[in-house]
Amino acid sequence: MSNSIEFYFDFSSPYGYLGAQRIKEVADKHNRVIDWHPVLLGAIFKVSGQAPLVNFPLKGDYAIMDFQRSAREVGLPYAHPENFPIGAVAASRAVWWAKENTERTIQSKTTDLVQAIFKAYYVDGQDISNAEVVLNIADGVGLDKAVLTDALQDQAVKDRLKSAVSAAIEKKVFGSPMMIVDGESFWGNDRIEQLDRWLTRGGW
Amino acid sequence: MSNSIEFYFDFSSPYGYLGAQRIKEVADKHNRVIDWHPVLLGAIFKVSGQAPLVNFPLKGDYAIMDFQRSAREVGLPYAHPENFPIGAVAASRAVWWAKENTERTIQSKTTDLVQAIFKAYYVDGQDISNAEVVLNIADGVGLDKAVLTDALQDQAVKDRLKSAVSAAIEKKVFGSPMMIVDGESFWGNDRIEQLDRWLTRGGW
Repeated sequence: MSNSIEFYFDFSSPYGYLGAQRIKEVADKHNRVIDWHPVLLGAIFKVSGQAPLVNFPLKGDYAIMDFQRSAREVGLPYAHPENFPIGAVAASRAVWWAKENTERTIQSKTTDLVQAIFKAYYVDGQDISNAEVVLNIADGVGLDKAVLTDALQDQAVKDRLKSAVSAAIEKKVFGSPMMIVDGESFWGNDRIEQLDRWLTRGGW
Repeated sequence: MSNSIEFYFDFSSPYGYLGAQRIKEVADKHNRVIDWHPVLLGAIFKVSGQAPLVNFPLKGDYAIMDFQRSAREVGLPYAHPENFPIGAVAASRAVWWAKENTERTIQSKTTDLVQAIFKAYYVDGQDISNAEVVLNIADGVGLDKAVLTDALQDQAVKDRLKSAVSAAIEKKVFGSPMMIVDGESFWGNDRIEQLDRWLTRGGW
């Protein structure tokens, strides 16, 4: 999508949560739309040879502290989830289903759904790896729970998430959040200011 | 050292180079001294289960681009070294020797030596893994080449670097640069602004 900021993320990524809340301001400032790309880092890490931050001795403890300090720094609530990291398959499928829906009323809820899922996990401590939890969150933003229940079992929706992960790897996405704008990649919540300045300067 | 910013780094880390140039301003602003801790990430990675950034598919290419963009962002010259990463044993030993020297004239050259070695590698493309190159850089900042030549072979100097790496691991240092101030750790050139704000707020 031209004129967009492609925002790749895994719901299981705290920096994805922080970035997703903060990217809106930058997008508005530069008249860009946010193109949400939920992906599964587990599948990407198999290709990129990485592993979740918290799996590393030394780095893992720092990471959990840094999630909290980074949230405090930007004034966002953060409660490190008890069950972490989790698999966000149902949540990610739900977003792809909403985002590419032919019904405008469903499609228009995509951003609300993304933010509500993140908030449920990182603020309210809900287990978003559970499909029933995702359905209730979707219901909360005005999406039809029965319709989404069917969609989550739809092979086309399952395949869409798979193809999205493959497409992300093709674009060399290896972390969350990763933002691509006009072909330039920015990795990390801590690169949003750089992305902002990059757009302000007209790209260099 | 109280009232200091402990600055852990590997000379083979581009973010270490950028951070080392930028930390002075923050230290001056808050009346802190910089306590240089050259370490060897190779030894630390064995404990922390990590590997050099550029060894990872996907992430590696991004990293090399990000070194250059991050340098441009802060207005520092950067030429990605042909031979990268390298082992900075001699360079690191030289800094420990200078830093803990009983001769005040030698000790006072520590910061100049750190900056000169970084510049030689990331700006002038010199091979700082070569001890002779390190000796010439030291000579350039006014250190006695013959005295340092002997020091680099001194078992006490060799042991000092080893104990410094062990002490860094004890302090959960796993990357470069890593800054510890009043017991709080900050990892990355991209955390210097956070460190600055943290000190401004009086630590939280």
